[in-house]
Amino acid sequence: MDFQRLAIQYKTELLGNVVPFWLNKSQDKEYGGYFSCLDKAGKVFDTDKFVWLQAREVWLFSMLYNRVEQKPEWLECARQGGEFLKKYGHDGFGNWYFSLTTDGKPLIQPYNIFSYTFAAMAFAQLGLATGNDEYTSLARQTYDRILERQDNPKGRYNKAVPGTRNLKNFALPMIMCNLNLEMEHLLGKEFVEESAVTLIDEVMNVFYRPEYGLIVENVNQNGSFSDTFDGRLVNPGHAIEAMWFIMDLAERLDRRDVIDQAQTIILQTLEHGWDKKFGGIFYFMDAKNHPPQQLEWDMKLWWVHLETLIALLKGYHLTGSEENLHWFEKVHDYTWKHFKDTESPEWFGYLNRRGEVTHSLKGGKWKGCFHVPRGLFQCWQTLEKMTWRQ
Amino acid sequence: MDFQRLAIQYKTELLGNVVPFWLNKSQDKEYGGYFSCLDKAGKVFDTDKFVWLQAREVWLFSMLYNRVEQKPEWLECARQGGEFLKKYGHDGFGNWYFSLTTDGKPLIQPYNIFSYTFAAMAFAQLGLATGNDEYTSLARQTYDRILERQDNPKGRYNKAVPGTRNLKNFALPMIMCNLNLEMEHLLGKEFVEESAVTLIDEVMNVFYRPEYGLIVENVNQNGSFSDTFDGRLVNPGHAIEAMWFIMDLAERLDRRDVIDQAQTIILQTLEHGWDKKFGGIFYFMDAKNHPPQQLEWDMKLWWVHLETLIALLKGYHLTGSEENLHWFEKVHDYTWKHFKDTESPEWFGYLNRRGEVTHSLKGGKWKGCFHVPRGLFQCWQTLEKMTWRQ
Repeated sequence: MDFQRLAIQYKTELLGNVVPFWLNKSQDKEYGGYFSCLDKAGKVFDTDKFVWLQAREVWLFSMLYNRVEQKPEWLECARQGGEFLKKYGHDGFGNWYFSLTTDGKPLIQPYNIFSYTFAAMAFAQLGLATGNDEYTSLARQTYDRILERQDNPKGRYNKAVPGTRNLKNFALPMIMCNLNLEMEHLLGKEFVEESAVTLIDEVMNVFYRPEYGLIVENVNQNGSFSDTFDGRLVNPGHAIEAMWFIMDLAERLDRRDVIDQAQTIILQTLEHGWDKKFGGIFYFMDAKNHPPQQLEWDMKLWWVHLETLIALLKGYHLTGSEENLHWFEKVHDYTWKHFKDTESPEWFGYLNRRGEVTHSLKGGKWKGCFHVPRGLFQCWQTLEKMTWRQ
Repeated sequence: MDFQRLAIQYKTELLGNVVPFWLNKSQDKEYGGYFSCLDKAGKVFDTDKFVWLQAREVWLFSMLYNRVEQKPEWLECARQGGEFLKKYGHDGFGNWYFSLTTDGKPLIQPYNIFSYTFAAMAFAQLGLATGNDEYTSLARQTYDRILERQDNPKGRYNKAVPGTRNLKNFALPMIMCNLNLEMEHLLGKEFVEESAVTLIDEVMNVFYRPEYGLIVENVNQNGSFSDTFDGRLVNPGHAIEAMWFIMDLAERLDRRDVIDQAQTIILQTLEHGWDKKFGGIFYFMDAKNHPPQQLEWDMKLWWVHLETLIALLKGYHLTGSEENLHWFEKVHDYTWKHFKDTESPEWFGYLNRRGEVTHSLKGGKWKGCFHVPRGLFQCWQTLEKMTWRQ
């Protein structure tokens, strides 16, 4: 495999197509922040502002500034979004709304803990980029708020009757694996190393179910399997994304055993989640192969495929497994063929089972300036490391 | 069109296939109530009990007993489900949970007003079937609770920040059109006639937007169009189902103008919602043709097609419009070809855009003993009325 050629392909797509798309099309020059609902050509079709996507774009442009090149327009893009978020994104008591109107009025209450995690990630990276303590302390305060809320992340919006079926969800420990590394400069080496032990155990020994060889999205509070719709739910893209977070953490801690386990889970999940008929990775599955509740279970989503490419390359880089290269080739071909729009920049997000585009948008309520550019960046960087070794 | 032959087809499918399926496969002989998560052959694959579907099955078997034949096994099926619901379905203060465990422990809080509307409908019909006042007064109390909650149906689970964008939703006034007629023997003639004026106005003059020729799912509190994801949302099946509720109400009130308006809306909605490429009616659309938020927007759902068949026949029966017969033929052919399972009883619920089955289940969290049998019953009855006229 020609790692050098591939590294250039990922880098060129990132810097030549995707980053300029968001830089030029998404910024709201009137009120600040970003539009994320952009049609095929990049035209705004809805002006609501979703805090997940506002924060992720602040993070992305800060990260590019910190790690690729100190371009003033990247910093300014991140900074203006950060100012909008700082001013309108929370309720003044550290609670991050889910969405805002174009001029910053709160629309949807702070029911979603991931608005907090992406805000923390955004302000930590923007603090690094600007050296501005105000951003750094906002990141730190938000992190503390996440810890306070982590045992009941939905708070008063939790619809489960207490005591009947207390499940815990995979997404938060998974995101914390990534967030702690993102914020190590603020949280300290010791904290990150200590909490990593618990996080790795939670992800690899509790949510990973050896009887199925899969990670499930929900388990009972005591860590046992729940034979219910929620307990059987498998989200292959989610599990695979978590595995590269885990690999980053394990590499940082020099835990070879954990790297090997993550590598095994990536391949098992792909084997299970790959659509043998039409190609691509399913969105949702049921661990016991019952019909999933989600109507969209057989769709192919952009982020699933980009996260898988990252995981396969990191896995190869760390373990040298040839199987990763075979899978990478297959997923790479599918991804570039189906998600890349050859007519205008940024990628499609949503395909049906056959790989046909179902939503022509380039951004919406859930798709913003995040998985495509982060995926291209991570693949480019890992491929470059591999060329050094060749 | 051979109405007699069609009447027999709908009746035979109802009484020969669908009703026996639910009677034999869904009843929980241990704890009472019904299993709704049934696979292709009718085997239980999950035991959670959803109050919408528990109540709808009580209603369906009571209704068959009241309107088709006084079969003891139908009454017993309705009665035992009613007892389960009466005992476990609510919190003792008239609030109906969303779901329960198999043995009746509450799982999901009473956040959903439609658990109440279907409970009211169930106990009103079961009261008629049994003559038991306990059921009747439970229906009446539940109805009062709906009126109390109707201005803020989601209560503390409402995630919208008050004041920024106060929308009202189409589903409740739509369901009330049907529920009031269902409960007229308890609510009284005067109440039903008076409230019908407001309900008809709300549905036909507020949620119906003449500028698009469509009913939208949400409007601003003041009745104006909201150019947002929620405000642009169109659910063709929902709108068409509402039109037969409205036709029933208008027939009851002898409002010929309203019947004609409903008839027009049915045809306009079908014209808009019909998939010209693959046939079938889309699940969700955007009034301004932007990409809908719903990933499953292009799927074809069983209930959408059954409700459309009812509306087309009622419309033809009341107006004599030949266009309805052309559409009926088209939708009837699509529905029987794609949703009916020729190998085992009950119909499939979920197809992709091309009409291929995506979920092999016969019942799940949202599909129970309701739309297929009610649809077959309503079509059979209306077709019979039409044969009298031929």
